[in-house]
Amino acid sequence: MTLSKAAEHFQESAIRRIGALSASVPGLISFAAGYPAPEVFPWDDLQSITAQILSRHDGNTLQYGATRGYRPLIEHLLAQTLKTRDITARFEDVIITSGSQQGLDLVGRVLIDPGDPVIVELPTYSGAIAAFHNLQASLVGIPQDAEGIEIAGLDRVAADLKTQGRPAKFIYVTPNFQNPAGLLMSARRRRELLEAARRHDLVILEDDPYGSIYFEDVTTLEDTRPIKADDTDNRVIYLGSFSKILVPGLRVAWLVAPSAIAQKVELCKQAADISSGVFDQRIVHGALAGGVIDRIAPGLRSHYQAKRTVMERALGAQLRDRVKWTSPRGGFFLWIQIPGADDRELFDRAIKEKVSFVLGSAFFVDGGGHEFARLAFSGSTHDQIEEGIRRLSTAVR
Amino acid sequence: MTLSKAAEHFQESAIRRIGALSASVPGLISFAAGYPAPEVFPWDDLQSITAQILSRHDGNTLQYGATRGYRPLIEHLLAQTLKTRDITARFEDVIITSGSQQGLDLVGRVLIDPGDPVIVELPTYSGAIAAFHNLQASLVGIPQDAEGIEIAGLDRVAADLKTQGRPAKFIYVTPNFQNPAGLLMSARRRRELLEAARRHDLVILEDDPYGSIYFEDVTTLEDTRPIKADDTDNRVIYLGSFSKILVPGLRVAWLVAPSAIAQKVELCKQAADISSGVFDQRIVHGALAGGVIDRIAPGLRSHYQAKRTVMERALGAQLRDRVKWTSPRGGFFLWIQIPGADDRELFDRAIKEKVSFVLGSAFFVDGGGHEFARLAFSGSTHDQIEEGIRRLSTAVR
Repeated sequence: MTLSKAAEHFQESAIRRIGALSASVPGLISFAAGYPAPEVFPWDDLQSITAQILSRHDGNTLQYGATRGYRPLIEHLLAQTLKTRDITARFEDVIITSGSQQGLDLVGRVLIDPGDPVIVELPTYSGAIAAFHNLQASLVGIPQDAEGIEIAGLDRVAADLKTQGRPAKFIYVTPNFQNPAGLLMSARRRRELLEAARRHDLVILEDDPYGSIYFEDVTTLEDTRPIKADDTDNRVIYLGSFSKILVPGLRVAWLVAPSAIAQKVELCKQAADISSGVFDQRIVHGALAGGVIDRIAPGLRSHYQAKRTVMERALGAQLRDRVKWTSPRGGFFLWIQIPGADDRELFDRAIKEKVSFVLGSAFFVDGGGHEFARLAFSGSTHDQIEEGIRRLSTAVR
Repeated sequence: MTLSKAAEHFQESAIRRIGALSASVPGLISFAAGYPAPEVFPWDDLQSITAQILSRHDGNTLQYGATRGYRPLIEHLLAQTLKTRDITARFEDVIITSGSQQGLDLVGRVLIDPGDPVIVELPTYSGAIAAFHNLQASLVGIPQDAEGIEIAGLDRVAADLKTQGRPAKFIYVTPNFQNPAGLLMSARRRRELLEAARRHDLVILEDDPYGSIYFEDVTTLEDTRPIKADDTDNRVIYLGSFSKILVPGLRVAWLVAPSAIAQKVELCKQAADISSGVFDQRIVHGALAGGVIDRIAPGLRSHYQAKRTVMERALGAQLRDRVKWTSPRGGFFLWIQIPGADDRELFDRAIKEKVSFVLGSAFFVDGGGHEFARLAFSGSTHDQIEEGIRRLSTAVR
């Protein structure tokens, strides 16, 4: 049996290794996986929505569905969700995907040939690294400052690649509360990024799973305005998801792309899984159209905001002298720098103390990041956060 | 925006074109899509299973899940389903996929490099053609006789490819009630195929979505024994599905592969969609472990058997002199040959008569098949079948 070149290339992700390790440690407090909190899942709504859907005995509910997605869901996205975000799109531009992870994979398959350069942030989402890596992209990282990706660095890299005759296929960014760094890209930087993309004729792949999870003490909806909203020359592909604002166990996300790209994504998806789960899509549509998602959103924001506060206070109390971080204005993560540390050694010590995180280096495509760690506060209780940071403090010292 | 070479290559499938066309014809009777019949979906069971799952408020139900799949579902497959089919496998060999279509895509991604030969039957499942085509495989077809794929042809092709220094990556077969031909491969031919695979050191990709839908008037369970059951040297990858024996709207299927392949499939799937829907998997597990699937299976068999009988009688009454077919012993399809016909012209005439089917040529990788049409009887009522065949008869004459 001879594997494909791509498959020889497939790697186990750092998060996966950590997951496997963590499962074997009883009493572990995990800050590793960026899981949403089940205590804010709208259980009763989901129960009544599913009961209602199934009680109709409508065959289409459990049948094969259109590859593009469940039409009423797409229409609701167009008429409401996208409008709220100031994004103009047509039916032909939208595809429902099985989570945004599938969006990353499908867009990658439509755009990337082996060896093609793809520009990402330093650090960037490890799942995007895996998706593009599996397609044999050549990943090039650009540092971020407090406002987001550095335009001077982007200019240099984009020009270099063009000079080498292999222009970047796209630039991948997560402007809202980035995974892992928690960074909110400034409005100015978003404009500059779009201008730079025009200058270098780059496609922007904008991933926005956390945009609705902004912390109202320091952030407003306006701060999360998508780059796609100002995409007047149709070069931005936008990924939205229900995983963080509803539940991830229903695999439903969506993308908006120039229709020529969307059409290729649809063809790729048709052969990849025919369609995303029709029942899942109907449940999500029920929650969206029935106002459940809007109703629970403020509660989610305050829930995660409170957890962020607990974790920051604990870090301040336990590790103020050893650890640096920028307070996240939304999302699920605290991204800490431990000057002088090595993330692998720290991780081994942390596991002995029964606390886990994701190695900073898992999010860097340039071999760096070893002074960093990603702490997810989203899935733990306040008590677990406090106890976990105590354990981490022991591990750091 | 420059597309990848793969994407330039993506094609709209014939079935998709037909679907788009059909949707615009009011009053159309469709024999095109191979849809299971919603009237045999176990609505009440699914309703009580979902209610029960959600009432537990178990966070893991709607959380991100393991890429490999929901462990109790895999364990049930190992302990029961696979045992019934005489397949020996371990936990490491099984992956839950989003429909078997995803199994085809993932196995393809793990094994196929652009240009690699893949051997398929003439005709073969159009979704497999699309999946392998999108991966830029070079598809080589082998004719089938009444017992299944012709071994002499396979020997010749496999030897030729080896001589050319580019041996086939695998051979794809659907031994049970093949889509589209409805053919049941004989026990002898299965043995011969396995021997030929050993002779040429070929991997067999065995797709079995219809194995449980055998018609008890002419077929027994023993006739559907998987090739994988006799796979003593671990060269068979087996795909099983819940789409036809439960519902396709829950995207849950599974594959059994040599563990080295399964591990790569898992890595590929992790970056492709993280995991199949966790809620879907729990519902399917509930239906499987709760005995629903076993309980409804005899009813499904007689339901589709009756539809086959109605369609065959109607064909016999209306088109006996113009059309030839082999009576299918299971599955969803009647595969008819109309000597002298051109499937595209016939299709245009059929649409005028408000009946549709899938062009025979959609299932052939050698440009042939224009004398054939695939008629799905699975999703239509008896009345629709009778009326649809009357319309088809008008179109043929």
